[in-house]
Amino acid sequence: MTDQATADLWPVPPLGGPGGGRAAGRTGERTEAARRLLLAAVDSFARRGYHATTTRDIATAAGMSPAALYIHYPSKAALLSEISRTGHQATLDLVERAEAGSSDPVEQMRRLVEDFTTWHARGHTVGRIVNHELHALPDEDFAVVAELRRRIEETVRRIIDAGVASGAFAVPDVRTAARAATSLGIDVSRWYSERSTETPEELGRRYGVLVLRMLGATV
Amino acid sequence: MTDQATADLWPVPPLGGPGGGRAAGRTGERTEAARRLLLAAVDSFARRGYHATTTRDIATAAGMSPAALYIHYPSKAALLSEISRTGHQATLDLVERAEAGSSDPVEQMRRLVEDFTTWHARGHTVGRIVNHELHALPDEDFAVVAELRRRIEETVRRIIDAGVASGAFAVPDVRTAARAATSLGIDVSRWYSERSTETPEELGRRYGVLVLRMLGATV
Repeated sequence: MTDQATADLWPVPPLGGPGGGRAAGRTGERTEAARRLLLAAVDSFARRGYHATTTRDIATAAGMSPAALYIHYPSKAALLSEISRTGHQATLDLVERAEAGSSDPVEQMRRLVEDFTTWHARGHTVGRIVNHELHALPDEDFAVVAELRRRIEETVRRIIDAGVASGAFAVPDVRTAARAATSLGIDVSRWYSERSTETPEELGRRYGVLVLRMLGATV
Repeated sequence: MTDQATADLWPVPPLGGPGGGRAAGRTGERTEAARRLLLAAVDSFARRGYHATTTRDIATAAGMSPAALYIHYPSKAALLSEISRTGHQATLDLVERAEAGSSDPVEQMRRLVEDFTTWHARGHTVGRIVNHELHALPDEDFAVVAELRRRIEETVRRIIDAGVASGAFAVPDVRTAARAATSLGIDVSRWYSERSTETPEELGRRYGVLVLRMLGATV
């Protein structure tokens, strides 16, 4: 159930914790326990839906007691918030890397769509949760995630604007085109599964071509 | 909460029921009660998620007792199945109408995307439920819905195939292109809301152009 991108979000800390041996013991243990709880929460939310999952379900899946869970996360909502913030931050990072990696809007957009699509296919379990349970976030966490989403959309619009200015793209409405480009990638997490015939990377490359064409680029 | 497309799916029966006066009384009442339960179920599933909704929630929202609900639907799953089957059948109908309405693949595809997108924007509440709660359907109902989805995708692929054959479209992979075209429309129900600045029809027209370009048509 746990896919690669999920595990990537919370890698196993090096032996002895982030301090590389010096901060051994308690810190390392706490990080590993928190990671196990996050993976168990993703798994439980994906199976039962957020609302029907209890903190007991998550603790059991992580091989802990509910009391041990509360040491790390005060509530089920706190787990959802961390999953959502981490997932959105990783997505914003890849979008910004795509923009920074070239000065040509066509290449920026190609890489953005390829990476965004591959990420949502590989991490479809987390993608489904963070995109479909937004309304369940506590207000202050929703505000943080909404800001990350705004920055993702803004980056996509900025690249399309630059492409329109350079004559590489031609779209009737930049806002709608940016929305369509991200929507296409986000929806991959709804339908993609391990049984899909395309690998995440193949799908990313094909979607890169489709979106560039949608934007009026010659590819 | 109840959007237009939701109400359209289960219109109020004419006075006296489908028999137009002859089948008055009990039949008419039962149809109206069933319709109220379906609308209440859509509303409750959208608010709380399917898993966290109880039949008591639905009965209360419809102004009925749980016992009265069971007269019409044996379970919460039976309500989800009817919502899902009706929604998918209506979607297949509009897709087939788009194909039948013209012999030109470009016009078939334009109308298909316009209607499909408008439908998912206007009926975003139902769209979200039927696309995100598929796994909650009982096996035999899932099989019916999976067959409707297969026929929708097949129609989209058939139109793209015809366009490729006539030289109007050029795509690297018909399956991926068909998947992208439907995915774009389906995801509208996730993000569209009454606060969106575009009307469902405006969005439909813009998406029609974007998808035709994606398929390599000159628009």
